Amino acid sequence: MGSTEDLDYPQTILQYSSGFLVSKVMFTACELGVFDLLLESGEPLSSDAIAARLGTSTTGMERLLDACVGLKLLAVDLTQEGALYRNTEISNIYLTKSSPKSQYHIMMYYSNTVYLCWHYLANAVREGRNQYERAFGVSSEDPFGAMYRSEEEMLKFMAGQNSVWSICGRDVLAAFDLSPFRQIYDLGGGGGALARECVSLYPNSTVTIYDLPKVVQVAKEQFIPPEEHRITFHEGDFFNNSIPEADLYILSKILHDWDDDKCRQLLAKVYKACKPG
Amino acid sequence: MGSTEDLDYPQTILQYSSGFLVSKVMFTACELGVFDLLLESGEPLSSDAIAARLGTSTTGMERLLDACVGLKLLAVDLTQEGALYRNTEISNIYLTKSSPKSQYHIMMYYSNTVYLCWHYLANAVREGRNQYERAFGVSSEDPFGAMYRSEEEMLKFMAGQNSVWSICGRDVLAAFDLSPFRQIYDLGGGGGALARECVSLYPNSTVTIYDLPKVVQVAKEQFIPPEEHRITFHEGDFFNNSIPEADLYILSKILHDWDDDKCRQLLAKVYKACKPG
Repeated sequence: MGSTEDLDYPQTILQYSSGFLVSKVMFTACELGVFDLLLESGEPLSSDAIAARLGTSTTGMERLLDACVGLKLLAVDLTQEGALYRNTEISNIYLTKSSPKSQYHIMMYYSNTVYLCWHYLANAVREGRNQYERAFGVSSEDPFGAMYRSEEEMLKFMAGQNSVWSICGRDVLAAFDLSPFRQIYDLGGGGGALARECVSLYPNSTVTIYDLPKVVQVAKEQFIPPEEHRITFHEGDFFNNSIPEADLYILSKILHDWDDDKCRQLLAKVYKACKPG
Repeated sequence: MGSTEDLDYPQTILQYSSGFLVSKVMFTACELGVFDLLLESGEPLSSDAIAARLGTSTTGMERLLDACVGLKLLAVDLTQEGALYRNTEISNIYLTKSSPKSQYHIMMYYSNTVYLCWHYLANAVREGRNQYERAFGVSSEDPFGAMYRSEEEMLKFMAGQNSVWSICGRDVLAAFDLSPFRQIYDLGGGGGALARECVSLYPNSTVTIYDLPKVVQVAKEQFIPPEEHRITFHEGDFFNNSIPEADLYILSKILHDWDDDKCRQLLAKVYKACKPG
């Protein structure tokens, strides 16, 4: 950036311009199941075979696959039977649904929810508020009123957050030695992937997921196995209900959702509740 | 890509995921006039001053500006009066409306039209057709029936194409020596930026812009000065009307709009019309 080369021909700006095309190519190949099919098939497949198996148009699929090759999400072998496509290693690990490190759910959340909200970014900056109303007809000052507008949407969001923790949760928790802390509250702990990493890394800790009742219910049903006794639940709204005493509070991906006043209010409450030390 | 590092932590995939955020940050700062204001002001401005001058929320503007700093589209000076923002050199050249190399118009076309069509990429691949109907309620097999759905939309598209030629038209035309060719037809020449580069680089040539009547009319009114006698016009539809004889035909950014059959039909027609040599 700012190099002489970029001033002559704005490579960086052109890359920024096509960023949304790159995102949507990857999201769409995930959504249509391209990477899952190529993992399951165990052998490279032609564009026509992929289109037939996934029920898409042949021209559309061929263009999508070639775009994925350009992004190195797929590799192509040119054979006597024509072009045959296969996953790259990174796609097997991160873009297939069945992988433990799958990013599928967060990508579906970005692609189907966040992408459309961001279409209205100019309005968001003008008005200083979220754009769920323009994007989805849901009017809410509280972002979670919009994000959790149906149980299906809430589930997608929770699964998406869990995807993110699958790649960085352990590193975050290992960055500091948290072993002295036994009783931990994960405020807004959602689907509980961070809580699971925490009890795995610090076997003597117990983690309580503090979240809205409907979130806790889904976490119990879908994400936390009942035999995991080191993880417990607390139903509540951390702005309007009390926060119990604990050794450590985790506020992960929480403060960015709220304005400065709300954040100060929450941090003051945590400060009062926290055991000394 | 595919490096050990990327397999441990999928940096590339995370960059692809946030591509749409990067695009929209840049597009939105352009749309709201951030770069124009900072060029005109001639001095760095605070976030509050920019928000006030552009009529936006202060919190929204501050976040947008900081995102632009992260992308090196703006620079920030931390002074006693707080943070003051200024354009980087690349933004002055490419992101201000008044610059001869401005990419403003193509970015507005990407941001307001293409971005929304691409929200429906999964549908496009399933169905094998464009998504103007879902995005804009315009049903058309012919992409230009949708893209030119109003004179305003057509004008935005033409101005956008001209932006692109302002950075690469001369390089494309200089890649081969076209000086032997005197009579040149630019099929689908639109707003005429490539035609203007052509007569500037090859002063003995004349270029005829062949395009739909409504496009030619706008090109004459808005983009080609009447004193430019080396550029002439031909109103027609190159699929349904004849193509006159010439020394050279330019088909620039045309074939990608059509399926293989249509392209073969067009190329055969050009082949027949072209003067030998």
